[in-house]
Amino acid sequence: MPERMVIVGGDAAGMSAGSQARRLRGPDDLEIIAFERGHFTSYSACGVPYWISGLVDGPDALIARDPETFRRKHAIDVRLRHEVTAIDLDRREVIARALDDGGRELRERFDTLVYATGAVPVAPPWEQDDIAGIFGVQTLDDGSALRAWLDAEPRPQRAVVVGGGYVGVEMAEALIRRGLAVTLVDRGPQPMSTVDPDMGAMVREALCGLGIDVRTGVSVTGVAERGGRVSAVLTGSGELPADVVVLGLGVRPNTALAERSGLPLGVTGGLRTDLRMRLVGAPGPSGDGTMGGIWAAGDCVETVHRVTGQPVHIPLGTHANKQGRVAGINIGGGYATFPGVVGTAVTKVCDLEVARTGLRERDAAQAGYAYVTATVESNNRAGYFPGAAPMTVKLIAERGTGLLLGAQIVGRSESAKRIDVLAVALWNRMTVTEMTALDLGYAPPFAPVWDPVLVAARKAADAVGAAPS
Amino acid sequence: MPERMVIVGGDAAGMSAGSQARRLRGPDDLEIIAFERGHFTSYSACGVPYWISGLVDGPDALIARDPETFRRKHAIDVRLRHEVTAIDLDRREVIARALDDGGRELRERFDTLVYATGAVPVAPPWEQDDIAGIFGVQTLDDGSALRAWLDAEPRPQRAVVVGGGYVGVEMAEALIRRGLAVTLVDRGPQPMSTVDPDMGAMVREALCGLGIDVRTGVSVTGVAERGGRVSAVLTGSGELPADVVVLGLGVRPNTALAERSGLPLGVTGGLRTDLRMRLVGAPGPSGDGTMGGIWAAGDCVETVHRVTGQPVHIPLGTHANKQGRVAGINIGGGYATFPGVVGTAVTKVCDLEVARTGLRERDAAQAGYAYVTATVESNNRAGYFPGAAPMTVKLIAERGTGLLLGAQIVGRSESAKRIDVLAVALWNRMTVTEMTALDLGYAPPFAPVWDPVLVAARKAADAVGAAPS
Repeated sequence: MPERMVIVGGDAAGMSAGSQARRLRGPDDLEIIAFERGHFTSYSACGVPYWISGLVDGPDALIARDPETFRRKHAIDVRLRHEVTAIDLDRREVIARALDDGGRELRERFDTLVYATGAVPVAPPWEQDDIAGIFGVQTLDDGSALRAWLDAEPRPQRAVVVGGGYVGVEMAEALIRRGLAVTLVDRGPQPMSTVDPDMGAMVREALCGLGIDVRTGVSVTGVAERGGRVSAVLTGSGELPADVVVLGLGVRPNTALAERSGLPLGVTGGLRTDLRMRLVGAPGPSGDGTMGGIWAAGDCVETVHRVTGQPVHIPLGTHANKQGRVAGINIGGGYATFPGVVGTAVTKVCDLEVARTGLRERDAAQAGYAYVTATVESNNRAGYFPGAAPMTVKLIAERGTGLLLGAQIVGRSESAKRIDVLAVALWNRMTVTEMTALDLGYAPPFAPVWDPVLVAARKAADAVGAAPS
Repeated sequence: MPERMVIVGGDAAGMSAGSQARRLRGPDDLEIIAFERGHFTSYSACGVPYWISGLVDGPDALIARDPETFRRKHAIDVRLRHEVTAIDLDRREVIARALDDGGRELRERFDTLVYATGAVPVAPPWEQDDIAGIFGVQTLDDGSALRAWLDAEPRPQRAVVVGGGYVGVEMAEALIRRGLAVTLVDRGPQPMSTVDPDMGAMVREALCGLGIDVRTGVSVTGVAERGGRVSAVLTGSGELPADVVVLGLGVRPNTALAERSGLPLGVTGGLRTDLRMRLVGAPGPSGDGTMGGIWAAGDCVETVHRVTGQPVHIPLGTHANKQGRVAGINIGGGYATFPGVVGTAVTKVCDLEVARTGLRERDAAQAGYAYVTATVESNNRAGYFPGAAPMTVKLIAERGTGLLLGAQIVGRSESAKRIDVLAVALWNRMTVTEMTALDLGYAPPFAPVWDPVLVAARKAADAVGAAPS
């Protein structure tokens, strides 16, 4: 009888694990069953705002691989619209409900389990049950529901987006491109709190330039409704009329099933794994500190931040794919590790590119670092070359040692992906002084003779050695 | 009496050294004199092809800082059109000729000398004296001469570019954009031999797409003339009619003065320095293996390739600027080093971006490495995102250890600067297996969920462990 691998959650992490395991072990050796609550497998949730705006066609274009491909090419028994409701660790079975079959319950034995349930939106602190017109944009199903609402009569005219993070900012832009009047509300001093406020101020400017009404330092206290439809968002500083509300309050690991089933959680609320993505945290039958045969990957797990060494929960498709691949290789009998993250993220707000990696100022302070910052404005190309446009690079480095701690970039074209240079520098624990010598590509169409990253490193290197101000 | 610093060569390296030294030491402490043979200081020679094509205005736009700025803001006594003809090491004097003053000779004492004479074009092995219409494009003065020739009657119609390296390829494109019929001749199997031939084939295709007649495997044996003007380029496989010939045969360190003056050269023919850019190679008065008070920087020096540990001569503005800065900081009393290069270079051929870092296959073989290669085609953005375009990434890694040895990228927009990620990975001696985990920026406008660099690293990691084929 072949070993049986059961995957809970059929998106990036789970299906990467399945297809990697299959690559290494045939169906006679390893049976693979994947349960997915929704209608889709392996899709790009990050693409939803662009589907809403109309920039990309959806939902089909956002699906990397459909269930039929997994079934046919990878011999994975994909079961859509099946919600796993319990994991019986003693009997090593999962219990699932077939949502399109009256909730019929079924049990499946497993030898190997991959927990890959992703993340769920952070619920707002106010009551909103039974009010129509309030949406998260976490899944393709969410995207479908929002599009249907936007297209139905009476056509929504006024949108309020709550939360100015990546999803909030991208959705605000998507909605204004569809012709709605858009207000973006955020509690913090600037939108895009994933960068420091001085950099976030440039994002705010770009949003305002698009015609978005940006309200910062504003707390939402509730929503009002008329006839069961949302009519306004209530804030500490007044009412904002709304025919549609999009929530971008962030996400948290989707661990309800894990908690119910007695799987241990880490300090961030995500599942904790070792470097090979084996669940750890409680003595398991394996005797090695892992829970024998139980793996986890994707937005439901926590990982290590390589700068601070602390556990973090950073839900991002690129991590989910890598973690799923690592789990699958290990389950398949190979060897792979996921050695943590440095906190890289990029996004685009109209023509403005925004990127970050490592620690922000507040993170550095919280981690106990004495740090210096250096912010420079430079160009993406040689100043005389057509299309040259300004970009701002900010570096954060440890005082004294010059160890790079974090970096942020805001600029026009060809800015954001320069963060990768800084991410690799962080990964390798470089100092800003060493970075001043980096051999980066130079030609007039691509960079000034001193790349903006190098200019920033020079300024930071000067600051590192200077006396504290 | 202040110490006196004399700079020989007033372009990137020399003037960077001067301005950095000045930043740290005032005119009362350090007198700075810079001799420059040509008409300009601190300009972007890399911009010359774009000036020829008309894409950028020249020559003013290509000048980073003019002599007046150096004189006024940095108190550097810049002497244009002065050629240094000898360095008297015993008397610690330079002897110069004032070219615009009948060659009048003058002597200047120095305490500190910065040798920054740059590079000179490799001369062709054939006789071309007294034939008009043959140009290098090494300096702004070269660019001026070529532009004047192109604009004068009789208007040149047919151009032959000899040599398919960066300058040759960029000049071929510039000339065809000006409306000339262009033939590009190269001895090798593909143009752009700075990348492997499989990648160079894509460059050839792009050049042909522009209408350039690309002849590879062809050796030039001479030039023909009519009335003192070039009329054809002679090759082993026939005559190529030409009204203008551009030579892109590469450059070599400009060391004639050094040789005449008894300064020692390294194995590549460039001047050899220590990490602080002090000239080494012969016992000097300093007793520490350096030649006391003699510094060198820029295209005239050799440096260390950090992958092979061997000396290399890689003339590039970005290195010249860094080396000049390092020399200047040290002369100014600070501390800085130039720790070598990894061989990064980027260029653009019409819409095609070409990038490389580290070793090519032939370099790896020559250095004695057993290596594997991995080439992948991926997209610059998420496949469904508007503007997604293909790019090819090739990695070369040591068999067994997986140590990254080199990388090449050819693609459309947003391709070339991705080489920087690989350059930083090389700098830090990463393995391709470790690179599969790198935390690179992901969002649909900027990358697929697996960045092309990561896809290539995955494929290379697979190949590293496989049995030799």
